[in-house]
Amino acid sequence: MEQFRVLIDADDEKGLVYKVSSIFYEHGLNILSNNEFVDKVNGKFFMRSVVEGDVDSNNLRKSLVDLLPDNSNIDVIKPAKKNIIIMATKEMHALGDILIRHEAGELDANILGVISNYEILESLVTKFDIPYVSISHVGLSRDEHEEKILEYLSTFKDIDYIVLAKYMRILTPKFVEAFEDKIINIHHSFLPAFIGANPYKQAYERGVKIIGATAHFVNNNLDEGPIISQEVIHVDHAYGWRDMQRSGRNVEKIVLSHALKLALEDRIFVYANKSVIF
Amino acid sequence: MEQFRVLIDADDEKGLVYKVSSIFYEHGLNILSNNEFVDKVNGKFFMRSVVEGDVDSNNLRKSLVDLLPDNSNIDVIKPAKKNIIIMATKEMHALGDILIRHEAGELDANILGVISNYEILESLVTKFDIPYVSISHVGLSRDEHEEKILEYLSTFKDIDYIVLAKYMRILTPKFVEAFEDKIINIHHSFLPAFIGANPYKQAYERGVKIIGATAHFVNNNLDEGPIISQEVIHVDHAYGWRDMQRSGRNVEKIVLSHALKLALEDRIFVYANKSVIF
Amino acid sequence: MEQFRVLIDADDEKGLVYKVSSIFYEHGLNILSNNEFVDKVNGKFFMRSVVEGDVDSNNLRKSLVDLLPDNSNIDVIKPAKKNIIIMATKEMHALGDILIRHEAGELDANILGVISNYEILESLVTKFDIPYVSISHVGLSRDEHEEKILEYLSTFKDIDYIVLAKYMRILTPKFVEAFEDKIINIHHSFLPAFIGANPYKQAYERGVKIIGATAHFVNNNLDEGPIISQEVIHVDHAYGWRDMQRSGRNVEKIVLSHALKLALEDRIFVYANKSVIF
Amino acid sequence: MEQFRVLIDADDEKGLVYKVSSIFYEHGLNILSNNEFVDKVNGKFFMRSVVEGDVDSNNLRKSLVDLLPDNSNIDVIKPAKKNIIIMATKEMHALGDILIRHEAGELDANILGVISNYEILESLVTKFDIPYVSISHVGLSRDEHEEKILEYLSTFKDIDYIVLAKYMRILTPKFVEAFEDKIINIHHSFLPAFIGANPYKQAYERGVKIIGATAHFVNNNLDEGPIISQEVIHVDHAYGWRDMQRSGRNVEKIVLSHALKLALEDRIFVYANKSVIF
Repeated sequence: MEQFRVLIDADDEKGLVYKVSSIFYEHGLNILSNNEFVDKVNGKFFMRSVVEGDVDSNNLRKSLVDLLPDNSNIDVIKPAKKNIIIMATKEMHALGDILIRHEAGELDANILGVISNYEILESLVTKFDIPYVSISHVGLSRDEHEEKILEYLSTFKDIDYIVLAKYMRILTPKFVEAFEDKIINIHHSFLPAFIGANPYKQAYERGVKIIGATAHFVNNNLDEGPIISQEVIHVDHAYGWRDMQRSGRNVEKIVLSHALKLALEDRIFVYANKSVIF
Repeated sequence: MEQFRVLIDADDEKGLVYKVSSIFYEHGLNILSNNEFVDKVNGKFFMRSVVEGDVDSNNLRKSLVDLLPDNSNIDVIKPAKKNIIIMATKEMHALGDILIRHEAGELDANILGVISNYEILESLVTKFDIPYVSISHVGLSRDEHEEKILEYLSTFKDIDYIVLAKYMRILTPKFVEAFEDKIINIHHSFLPAFIGANPYKQAYERGVKIIGATAHFVNNNLDEGPIISQEVIHVDHAYGWRDMQRSGRNVEKIVLSHALKLALEDRIFVYANKSVIF
Repeated sequence: MEQFRVLIDADDEKGLVYKVSSIFYEHGLNILSNNEFVDKVNGKFFMRSVVEGDVDSNNLRKSLVDLLPDNSNIDVIKPAKKNIIIMATKEMHALGDILIRHEAGELDANILGVISNYEILESLVTKFDIPYVSISHVGLSRDEHEEKILEYLSTFKDIDYIVLAKYMRILTPKFVEAFEDKIINIHHSFLPAFIGANPYKQAYERGVKIIGATAHFVNNNLDEGPIISQEVIHVDHAYGWRDMQRSGRNVEKIVLSHALKLALEDRIFVYANKSVIF
Repeated sequence: MEQFRVLIDADDEKGLVYKVSSIFYEHGLNILSNNEFVDKVNGKFFMRSVVEGDVDSNNLRKSLVDLLPDNSNIDVIKPAKKNIIIMATKEMHALGDILIRHEAGELDANILGVISNYEILESLVTKFDIPYVSISHVGLSRDEHEEKILEYLSTFKDIDYIVLAKYMRILTPKFVEAFEDKIINIHHSFLPAFIGANPYKQAYERGVKIIGATAHFVNNNLDEGPIISQEVIHVDHAYGWRDMQRSGRNVEKIVLSHALKLALEDRIFVYANKSVIF
């Protein structure tokens, strides 16, 4: 017996759960878990089911497409390792956390490669027999730099997610649009507080008592994409901004790895610049 | 259009969601929210739906009973204020939190009365025009004391929940069995740590760095009933046990009020000495 | 033997702890607790000591003044109930929390009165035999309205703190300057996120996964005064903004009461638009 | 100018802060940070100061010894990398977290070696050019197994801390006594809840809503040594014990690394089976 993740979003109407569950029943599927959410404000229905049974995924999908409203999005996914690219700059903690999880077999992912605009992380990445590509931005325009990155990325047939593990450069709209809802970034603040550069310094100057980190999909507005996950820690007056930075790393890496795990398990819907997470 | 909460627990089998949602569809009901959980270990299915429509609740229940397996538990509840009794001893914080929420209209409950074994809380409770009954335990055996309490309780036709808001006496099996899964207690520790008397003193002596509170249903094993909700706060070496007690009160009251809210909204299933909470 | 709280802030220089502790030693004082912090960036020294002994507080203060640098701020405080005014609008939770703590004897404060621009909270406040003054803003300019409030406040000889327990109007610079670092507000967001009106709606629209509350001193820049305390709770996609508001109330009241407690215990220094809290 | 950490614990008496700060002043030292705590119950005084200046650490220590009560413990420590041994069994997360931090230069430590009773972690550890010693327990008595470990440990001149990064075997009193207050363990529960084997299974069976991890020094009573650090995460009914285990790993590794950091920075005093942490 095989497992499938069924993801549906549709305009809300009466009977959707009934229709979906009738299809599952007809195909003799066992429901292992079922999550639904109706966004009343926007009239949208979201559903994620994990089902088990002897079924052809195309047939199952076809049955759902036939019964559900025309503009529904329907995915039937057989769980498998997803292909990811990691981009980083100089810091090790977020990247290292992903590498260790990958090594421990905790991540359902193939790391195709790690791209950095510096060479500093090379010795860490290559320990794990993962390709490391250093593409320096020095002397290049933003477009030229990204062109080189895109060229490297074009060598892969299929990239499911690009993970920005403290990649400290802003991506152009061209890049972002090429990977819509596929680029996961970790921002080192509790967004929307402290958008932009050096959020820990901003946090220190504002005198906050809590700092945080936010994993989000990247869109064309800096630090304003759909939020996937957030976490915080308490600080006090004795924290300078570098202390905040040091302590914040623990939150950054946990939040990013958590968001990546949600993505790899197909638990995230993106809608109206928000995420629905099951 | 009316709203109903439909609560179902049943032995798990294929097609339950389909059957339930087909009933909803046939009755022309709109699903406002839907939560399901399958306990694979015990083969149990739990479902809570909030539905909206023009339907007779008895008819709806009958349709569900007819279609679902024989030993299923099926409730169709029209949201209404529940009747609660509060029991307390001397401390004001947990009781006061419930009184203020009640006064603010936050709780879907009628407080039938407050019972205490002391008179100390009378002036607080009567401010809110809520009956206060002082039933002293002095000079009485445990059974005799409870007999008096049960006598008072028997004057009410219907009691949905008894809330122990820091009631510092142990209830006998006779009392507990009379109100199975209806007595909600707040224990001032992160259970199962520090069962029994003075958990803050125990916590202090053990040198823990976190203290907590646990709301749970009361059964016949002291502090071992099904847990509904837990929360914690950080402490350090500078906290004596009375400091822990003082800080702990904030957690106790929030956790108890939260558990009560879950109960009043019919969100809790109890099974195998655990809670399933939607 | 009496206890005193000694609060010192001074330009940092070598030997300050030595000088202060020598004074304590000479006066035969026992140090119950001692906290120090040096803000290296601004070259400022902060110290809060709780000492015990037979000493005249004026003498003790004089000794400290004589030995410490000229522009030091030195307070020797005999713990006593502080006089507070509460201002609120319509919501009961934050106000109610303070009233219950006051009733339980948890707060070292006399509540001189509660001011509101509505009558809605009167029945709650008067239960506790606390003066309630309704000063409607209807038909008045902001200045005229505040004039009436200031007139009422001027009937009190001494006001230590004004607590804004969900007072939903902006105070003018005139009012704020009259009570510098004495007005404690609770803002219903994790500042500096969601400054201004309806932060829960802003939070909902941004799709955050954590909401919070911030207690701060009020200055002339809206929601930008020195932060005293912050706390957060997790939310998810199923929370509409009213759900956030409901859940957020638990955090608001705990954070405000906590900030008030810190103020009543003379634990807060304000400097450079930040707080140092011991 | 050099920095020193001065750690003092002594029987409490009047004038200790004065005496210590007078010594600092006489030696022309600048106090960078100062923390004190008096345990009133046990009459013990604890102090940790970071001072800066041109001073011989032996002279400074001698001055303190001369002035403070006879049975005081006085350490003057020049910050330097400490030597640590890591012991692990099969799991990668806690070990991996330390390895990445070490690689990133976050830990003030030399990892002398990693000992495991299996070979499974070898490929991870040797990536980082750190000696890996597999000492199987198979076919050996507990004493014989430990004898082999102690033999390996005896090859090092100086071991500051032994970190048990999910080392799943119980150490004998002989071993523990050889490294008193030097062995840091991570227990995968919120101690004292769920002492002993498989705490996640115990937590699942008890139906808790929060799970945690505890870093503590190891003494001769299983899981009962002085607690250094604790942290928790929320779980719900949908978590089986393996889900708890997976989620718990994030807490375990952060808590252990945090406790190690505190130890490496000489921030922990152990007294009366508790820790005082500055």
